[in-house]
Amino acid sequence: MSDSDNNQIRIGLLSCINIVRKLSRAINLSPNATISAIATTSSIEEAKSFTASNNFPINTKIYGSYESLLQDPDVDAVYLPIPASLHVEWAVRAARQGKHILLDKPVALNVSEFDQIVEACEFYGVQFMDGTQWMHNPRTAKIIDFVKDFEIRTVNSCFSFAASESFLKNDIRVKPGLDGLGALGDAGWYTIQAVLVANNFKLPKTVTALPGSVLNDAGIVLSCGALFDWEEGITATIYCSFLANLTMEITAIGKKGTVNVRDFVIPYRETDAAFITSTRGCLSEHKVMTELPQETCMVIEFARLVGEIKNRGAKPDGFWLSFSRKVQLLVDAVKESIDNNLEPVLLSGR
Amino acid sequence: MSDSDNNQIRIGLLSCINIVRKLSRAINLSPNATISAIATTSSIEEAKSFTASNNFPINTKIYGSYESLLQDPDVDAVYLPIPASLHVEWAVRAARQGKHILLDKPVALNVSEFDQIVEACEFYGVQFMDGTQWMHNPRTAKIIDFVKDFEIRTVNSCFSFAASESFLKNDIRVKPGLDGLGALGDAGWYTIQAVLVANNFKLPKTVTALPGSVLNDAGIVLSCGALFDWEEGITATIYCSFLANLTMEITAIGKKGTVNVRDFVIPYRETDAAFITSTRGCLSEHKVMTELPQETCMVIEFARLVGEIKNRGAKPDGFWLSFSRKVQLLVDAVKESIDNNLEPVLLSGR
Repeated sequence: MSDSDNNQIRIGLLSCINIVRKLSRAINLSPNATISAIATTSSIEEAKSFTASNNFPINTKIYGSYESLLQDPDVDAVYLPIPASLHVEWAVRAARQGKHILLDKPVALNVSEFDQIVEACEFYGVQFMDGTQWMHNPRTAKIIDFVKDFEIRTVNSCFSFAASESFLKNDIRVKPGLDGLGALGDAGWYTIQAVLVANNFKLPKTVTALPGSVLNDAGIVLSCGALFDWEEGITATIYCSFLANLTMEITAIGKKGTVNVRDFVIPYRETDAAFITSTRGCLSEHKVMTELPQETCMVIEFARLVGEIKNRGAKPDGFWLSFSRKVQLLVDAVKESIDNNLEPVLLSGR
Repeated sequence: MSDSDNNQIRIGLLSCINIVRKLSRAINLSPNATISAIATTSSIEEAKSFTASNNFPINTKIYGSYESLLQDPDVDAVYLPIPASLHVEWAVRAARQGKHILLDKPVALNVSEFDQIVEACEFYGVQFMDGTQWMHNPRTAKIIDFVKDFEIRTVNSCFSFAASESFLKNDIRVKPGLDGLGALGDAGWYTIQAVLVANNFKLPKTVTALPGSVLNDAGIVLSCGALFDWEEGITATIYCSFLANLTMEITAIGKKGTVNVRDFVIPYRETDAAFITSTRGCLSEHKVMTELPQETCMVIEFARLVGEIKNRGAKPDGFWLSFSRKVQLLVDAVKESIDNNLEPVLLSGR
């Protein structure tokens, strides 16, 4: 094994679902990470063919259970793209085995579940990051640079896509026993992140669901909107939906400037990403070159943090746990308001 | 007088305030309209210098009172850029004299006042139009063409600008005795129009002001937001403010497509105006050439409707009265909700 291989963070993947294709490509493109193992709860043969057709390293170990992968000492970190209903169990188990965790959103079914993950990560000293990729696009850092000077007054963020009939029947995101939080835990997760990003990660005072939510027969949110407000008269609205045309929008308006992003979740192009600012009547389109796809930027940053811990004895960076917890808290509050006839939910003390 | 002059609608202007400069240029550029008179309640000398420096026709009559202008049989129509508190009085007087009316927004201090204008216009058979220019930009018709096929689910519209200290102290828009409705009757008027345009001019079921309103010491709205919802689960949010950076945004998201306009009130350029649609993953930027500035398009359309009445015995086109009344109703409802601790206001029966 060469020195450079030695320094790569070895990632194990739990399950062979579709999103793993994208993530395995991202890991392959990351100089500081490598795929070392994959676990499946179904057929080993299928997993073999999955690894072969997705350019996994030839020596990738294939495990027939999640637990056996977690016990492999040659795995530094795990990516968990499993349904939210399984997150507490498997994230806590991974932390116990000292595995650093890249966890898909929604990070849990609710914040009290997520707090078990927080405790385990803190107790076992493992790095946590949720798998939302847009946060790692270099564009996002630039946007944060602008909004912090703009004295934001209001934000509107929308993420919707028109799901297929089969998605609306079968996807884990519309099943109560699986992801459970529907469009709110999926598309809504991003819009809530956008609202927090625009407000310097500060939690609002109050969360109120807007009328017009659409729920399926099992009570899963297919479409909803919400209002957030801060003590200083700052407001934000979100809209998330599986039932409307693809839209991925942030408009953040401040005293001193406005930011507009039209493709914040997945940029139209992999090679660059744009956003617009206006300040004092001056309109600028900013184009940020992205040498690597944003999911690769995410893996590189995750592996960098894990490397700091593994190789230099650093402590985990708590930002990502704290950020995911805030988003989960707001997701829960929107759901609570929907369930309580759109009553405002006060966040103080949560 | 040539034949073409004979066919021009002769417009009288009530007052010499700043906006009249823009409108007089628009009338001068309109082949079917001409300025025939102006009335001032202050100095005639100043009015003379105003007409000279703004390229008014050399034979423009200058009146020392609004009433004398209204009695001039050589005036077909009047433009009333006077404060909203004077609208009922002067619009009704103009209608009694058979003058067609181009009235600045907000059209009245409240809908019951506006209903007096509606009655007078209908009784005396005069054409009414409110002076919001963006409605006449050829781009707006194209946008309407798109949204009607998109099955709109939600709309967000924002119009804000950072008013100067002197505006916030002295402008008629922040004075209770004058425009009275503040940012809501001014910037908010456009955003509410945008919401109605995107929803096929259908009134919502409920109107709810959002938290975060800013009022001045006299109780005038300087900044606010509101939520509109329709029976079909359709929602819209607006944000209007004198206290935030210039933003003029519409995002309308439907089942089948999304429209985004970033400069809907006053396009960045006079010569063309753009908007973006996306449908089924296909993003298009539409550029609509505008041979004439949008305020000229407005004057031409107003004069065309007046000409149909004057020269061909047509009836007034009731669309504009009806549209302005809807906008005023929604402005009133937002104000009512602000005044009632953000309680939802039901519109049925209004």
